[in-house]
Amino acid sequence: MNAAQVLIDGRWRAADAEGTFHAENPAKGEALPLAFPISRWSDCDAALNAATKAAAELRALDPAKIAAFLDAYAANIEAAADSIVAAAAEETALPVSPRLKDVELPRTTNQLRQAAAAVREESWRNATLDLEKNIRSCFAPIGPVVIFGPNNFPFAFNGVSGGDFAAAIAAGNPVIAKAHPLHPNTTEQAFKAVESTGLPPATVQMIYNINNENGLKLVSDPRVGAVGFTGSRNAGLHLKRAAEDAGKPIFLEMSSINPVIFLPGALAERHEQLAQELVDSVLAGSGQFCTSPNLLLVFETPQNQSQAEVFLAKIATSFTERPAQPLLSSAGRQQLQRGVTALTNAGAQLVTGGNNAPGEGYRYANTLLRATAAQFLAAPHDLQREIFGNATLAVVVNTQKELESILGLLEGNLTGTVYSAKSGAAQSGDDAIYNVIAPLLRERVGRLLNDKMPTGVAVSPAMNHGGPYPATSHPGTTSVGIPASIHRFAKLECYDAVRPERLPAILKDTIANPGTWRLINGNWTKG
Amino acid sequence: MNAAQVLIDGRWRAADAEGTFHAENPAKGEALPLAFPISRWSDCDAALNAATKAAAELRALDPAKIAAFLDAYAANIEAAADSIVAAAAEETALPVSPRLKDVELPRTTNQLRQAAAAVREESWRNATLDLEKNIRSCFAPIGPVVIFGPNNFPFAFNGVSGGDFAAAIAAGNPVIAKAHPLHPNTTEQAFKAVESTGLPPATVQMIYNINNENGLKLVSDPRVGAVGFTGSRNAGLHLKRAAEDAGKPIFLEMSSINPVIFLPGALAERHEQLAQELVDSVLAGSGQFCTSPNLLLVFETPQNQSQAEVFLAKIATSFTERPAQPLLSSAGRQQLQRGVTALTNAGAQLVTGGNNAPGEGYRYANTLLRATAAQFLAAPHDLQREIFGNATLAVVVNTQKELESILGLLEGNLTGTVYSAKSGAAQSGDDAIYNVIAPLLRERVGRLLNDKMPTGVAVSPAMNHGGPYPATSHPGTTSVGIPASIHRFAKLECYDAVRPERLPAILKDTIANPGTWRLINGNWTKG
Repeated sequence: MNAAQVLIDGRWRAADAEGTFHAENPAKGEALPLAFPISRWSDCDAALNAATKAAAELRALDPAKIAAFLDAYAANIEAAADSIVAAAAEETALPVSPRLKDVELPRTTNQLRQAAAAVREESWRNATLDLEKNIRSCFAPIGPVVIFGPNNFPFAFNGVSGGDFAAAIAAGNPVIAKAHPLHPNTTEQAFKAVESTGLPPATVQMIYNINNENGLKLVSDPRVGAVGFTGSRNAGLHLKRAAEDAGKPIFLEMSSINPVIFLPGALAERHEQLAQELVDSVLAGSGQFCTSPNLLLVFETPQNQSQAEVFLAKIATSFTERPAQPLLSSAGRQQLQRGVTALTNAGAQLVTGGNNAPGEGYRYANTLLRATAAQFLAAPHDLQREIFGNATLAVVVNTQKELESILGLLEGNLTGTVYSAKSGAAQSGDDAIYNVIAPLLRERVGRLLNDKMPTGVAVSPAMNHGGPYPATSHPGTTSVGIPASIHRFAKLECYDAVRPERLPAILKDTIANPGTWRLINGNWTKG
Repeated sequence: MNAAQVLIDGRWRAADAEGTFHAENPAKGEALPLAFPISRWSDCDAALNAATKAAAELRALDPAKIAAFLDAYAANIEAAADSIVAAAAEETALPVSPRLKDVELPRTTNQLRQAAAAVREESWRNATLDLEKNIRSCFAPIGPVVIFGPNNFPFAFNGVSGGDFAAAIAAGNPVIAKAHPLHPNTTEQAFKAVESTGLPPATVQMIYNINNENGLKLVSDPRVGAVGFTGSRNAGLHLKRAAEDAGKPIFLEMSSINPVIFLPGALAERHEQLAQELVDSVLAGSGQFCTSPNLLLVFETPQNQSQAEVFLAKIATSFTERPAQPLLSSAGRQQLQRGVTALTNAGAQLVTGGNNAPGEGYRYANTLLRATAAQFLAAPHDLQREIFGNATLAVVVNTQKELESILGLLEGNLTGTVYSAKSGAAQSGDDAIYNVIAPLLRERVGRLLNDKMPTGVAVSPAMNHGGPYPATSHPGTTSVGIPASIHRFAKLECYDAVRPERLPAILKDTIANPGTWRLINGNWTKG
């Protein structure tokens, strides 16, 4: 079988394949020539054995070597950027610029370098010393991490280069990555940038695809330390149950409709500008962002009615005028169509779009739907369905009470945004509403924004790319932002009365690394 | 029905009971006169509604009030100590002194006060500010926390006063506690020490018992924020699945056999002293500690054979000589007998004990079992069964290889201990073995000890009372030790470009509290 090779235990080799698959070029709507293997369990088993060995070796390694690996990987990705970007553009139809080459790839290498810096600094280990009682603890590697990357960020969330990858490696774990079947060649190209830098050969391993049964078996295998998953709610929930039943920590990012609230004063003050911002955000990446606004809550009153309607009309016009960009896949377009149909079946009115768009490839018309607050409140489950793509639902609310009721019925989301007026009487009016609704929204989202669209996710220690279930599986964790994202893939190790010479370096009374923050007798201390 | 009252929404009232139960006096082996209700779902439902309201109110409250409540609760427990201790002594048969009055109760109030101090200091919130990007995040309350306390620590792990309680309240959450049915009166007595200190009435609620079906319904209810559980593996796994299927974070402490390794040099050097320490540890609380040593790995060589055998003989003699203390319940004694029988069925030899002991109440003879390394390796699953009570299994190993093999087969545990020689050639010999086996043990335990029995669990920021599955449900968390234990009951809240006046106090540029550690632009900063 002439299919691409998997990387297991440091060696590119033919998969033990039960079949092959091809990615598509979504801009043309045709299959790509390269064949990729669907691995049988024996490939997973071999990877797990090799990872177990690598995990033990990594634990004994100087962290500087792990940091050097992450830096070198970032540099190699940059050196191979042209081929990686070309592969991604072909498999995803996402624009090379501005996006793959000048936004997502630099973001990805930046994240790898931030992870490297965290490994060098060692503060992520949260070393805690109680010198009086001679008890000491710190975070340490959790064991082999299996990572499933999503379809929508071929670099920044890829299992071989993204946030989960960087976090799992930074914590000192080997990674077994499952490529997303929509961009196997991208994954292979990125992955070929892995260079030997003195790490165990099985530190990073990659398979292209496995069947569902083997997926469940993989995440629940005794050799696994933890699992990272970014993708659909349906797939996520199946993996979640399998992993959790086996006692394996699994961190999932699954779905989010990212409500954006426009208060009356904001619409009165700057509805043209807001429409522009919103359109740019909803259509970014053809709406295929985890944080894409799927639900607009447009607060229309007798005073701002004309501006609110102009706002909605302007969005509709822009949606109609802007050419539809290709979606990631044929299946994604069908899923989007099903979502739009489900929303109209639940009472939403189709304002524009709602069908496939002309042009090559898997295009769907930019779609705006509209519903009343009463409609939303009558069908809150059906009308907060995630529609992954270039479509969004505007719910027009007329009273604060309606807005409060809607917020009270929202599921967990990654983000929630409020736009409010910035000056004058409009500001005080909006502020009064904000003070009541922000606490309600706060409870339902991981990241609360003001006057800013949620689609950008900065790599910052203060970022939370997480949120209450079902956006993720635990509202206390984040998949972006170092060091918090690293802690997901760490276990807590305590040393009680352990003899000084046997303590790990990070927990000795004095430490060589001058940059490390440690909590000693209740005080954060450096060096 | 003349049963005790439950506390729901700030009011002691009759339960909506489907039946009643009585606790036992395990020292006498007879039922106690007080009747306690088994609540129907309507009691849970009422508590959940009240807790939802309390959660919203608590979020808006000055943390100083929560701290004051925890301090006042500790003081009230102390003021009512006599009746609380008397109730516990009657229901558990644990000694008043040294234990309930002078060890466990002070430990419990100390923990409540440490939680109060953490609330006042606010460093637990892990406030992280990226001033350049204007992104800020902190931990915040997760929502109503349901707590199931265990049978073995009527104060220190009780759902109304223990570690999970202190952590959940400190995080700003209301608590719904389910009393353990073996000590309902203790729980009621402790709980009556809850005084109104300006907190919402439903901040702490308590029911005595519910049937299994309602237990599963309770932990998976949409109104729940998280669950804390300490108890048996069987009950824990059922609750785990129900909670996790509903997307509810659940933190469980379930089982542990706490291996204690005696290296050859240590036995040669101080076997008499070690036997004494071991006996004291195994028989503490009649062996009903989460961290009680259930598995001794005794390294016997041609050189130390006589001392190793004296060591084992001395343990057997002490076990035989020391009077058996009552166990917590009749069911517990039956379970212990089943465990001992299972171990002998799996090949272990009964050295002493193995049957009910004379004397009033539920007593079981102090029991020592013995097996060879070969036997353990032939039946590793059956021979690492937790035996909850005054029994322990000594496995005699003769080679380092055997020891390594055994450690490689251990499940996750709370603790693991190594005793080694402290001087001379014996020390270097043991050190060489330690260097190989400690990393293996390290991977399987939450807390690694040297030359110290694991039964004491200090309340220290550096403590880890946790460990790999199935000891707990997540190896990155601990149920003892502040602030880490608080983080389990918190969610991560991020503020992105939120206007300065709308930020919570903890995330503003400057903060009033001079004691709060915050991570600002990567540096831990106080005040």
